[in-house]
Amino acid sequence: MKIAVIGLGLIGGSFALEMKRLGHHVVGFEADETHAKRAIERRLVDQICTMDECIEVSDLLVLATPVDAINALLPELLAKIKDHQVVIDFGSTKGAILAEANKHVKRGRYVACHPMAGTEFSGPEAAVTDLFANKFVVICDRDDSDADALSLVNGIFDALKMKTVHYSGDLHDIHAAFVSHISHISSFSLALTVLEKEKNQKDIFQLAAGGFTSTVRLAKSAPHTWVPIFLQNRHHLLEVLQSHIEQLRAFELALSNNSASSLQDLIERANHIKKII
Amino acid sequence: MKIAVIGLGLIGGSFALEMKRLGHHVVGFEADETHAKRAIERRLVDQICTMDECIEVSDLLVLATPVDAINALLPELLAKIKDHQVVIDFGSTKGAILAEANKHVKRGRYVACHPMAGTEFSGPEAAVTDLFANKFVVICDRDDSDADALSLVNGIFDALKMKTVHYSGDLHDIHAAFVSHISHISSFSLALTVLEKEKNQKDIFQLAAGGFTSTVRLAKSAPHTWVPIFLQNRHHLLEVLQSHIEQLRAFELALSNNSASSLQDLIERANHIKKII
Repeated sequence: MKIAVIGLGLIGGSFALEMKRLGHHVVGFEADETHAKRAIERRLVDQICTMDECIEVSDLLVLATPVDAINALLPELLAKIKDHQVVIDFGSTKGAILAEANKHVKRGRYVACHPMAGTEFSGPEAAVTDLFANKFVVICDRDDSDADALSLVNGIFDALKMKTVHYSGDLHDIHAAFVSHISHISSFSLALTVLEKEKNQKDIFQLAAGGFTSTVRLAKSAPHTWVPIFLQNRHHLLEVLQSHIEQLRAFELALSNNSASSLQDLIERANHIKKII
Repeated sequence: MKIAVIGLGLIGGSFALEMKRLGHHVVGFEADETHAKRAIERRLVDQICTMDECIEVSDLLVLATPVDAINALLPELLAKIKDHQVVIDFGSTKGAILAEANKHVKRGRYVACHPMAGTEFSGPEAAVTDLFANKFVVICDRDDSDADALSLVNGIFDALKMKTVHYSGDLHDIHAAFVSHISHISSFSLALTVLEKEKNQKDIFQLAAGGFTSTVRLAKSAPHTWVPIFLQNRHHLLEVLQSHIEQLRAFELALSNNSASSLQDLIERANHIKKII
């Protein structure tokens, strides 16, 4: 199969590597020239093409750009593809992208996908093998995709040893807000809290150990990826963020009241996370 | 040397293992009978003793209990030890414990220590080898400790290949609030946020991937460890927590205003954490 990957960063580059390993011919489009050069040097794709060349030669087109670019590119691709071609995206939000896709006469050729895999790094340098194996991938609103398009996509995720689950776009976005997007906001905010203190407190990071690194790791994540995700999912994310702030306020109250029993209760309830992770 | 470790959990148990490896005779006291039994089964110590036996036989006494128990035990130990004996503690707070120590005529026999090492697990089962190598250990208010006591303690941390730094008790507590304690409150609160949602949203954890696990890992930490830490350091911790909530409020405002530029600015500033971790 001929596959075109649009956007050769962490996700697109890692996916391209896997597709090459599985024997597919993989071409790529990358808007950033330095990244395009690096993608070729790292042999993430067989060839760099223009967008029109990608559309011309491929059976499958994969949108792996930031979600604002997915929104802008999807109508263009659906307008230009022939009837046998399939378009998928790997965006971390789905509601806004599906709303765009649903306007289109060729909606059926599109399959909305979100592989739940990633790291805090970005760009072609961040592409790695084995990013996807044993991870979940969400396919949204699958009944709106053509059967042959779905079948092609399922075959690829099976080959990658991913676990496929199905959600509506809206339900996906709610879940993603709770188990991914809020973690990023929390990390960014923790980093800002300590960086702010550093301005008048020398060496504040000297004692940072594993716990700090763990909770702040995601704060390295790139703004060009996360600003559009946060904006596209802002209604759900605001709900989670306000609920998270309420939980922090409960700790604040317990500390203000010097209340061992309140802290004990909060921590015991939080410990139920052991059944999950 | 004969070493008595009081409290055979993650930190005390791991320390006991290392001391045995270095050839010392290690006895232990553990208030929890099940834990005491397990500590012997895992050969964390050569022998379980009563508190008085620990004091009787040891050159060095190590308090590795929760910080509230350290506060209660330290005056008793200082009252009972002979002049050549040394007491150290491994508490994650230092201000309150030092205030207790400073009242005592044998203050010089005590060295306040905090090894910046740990995991989210607790109890003798959590004890591991190699927990301390290459980590920082803080020694607080060292000028108030006798020279021979300091020398003994430095020798041990050198043998463990730890990096020793020196702070006042108060400065230690400020730093610990920023680079350790707030990370725990953040993790507990994130866990509570998602667990609360789970009550009416089935399968909310299905998509949880690496990012979520990373930020919520510390929420498994034990209340008997963390409630007394939070209470002893509550004044500094309240300051950090309020500052952290302000940063989250900035994200909330940016989302409410649908402001790409505000989100871009917040994330770019948070990305400066790359210079640290």
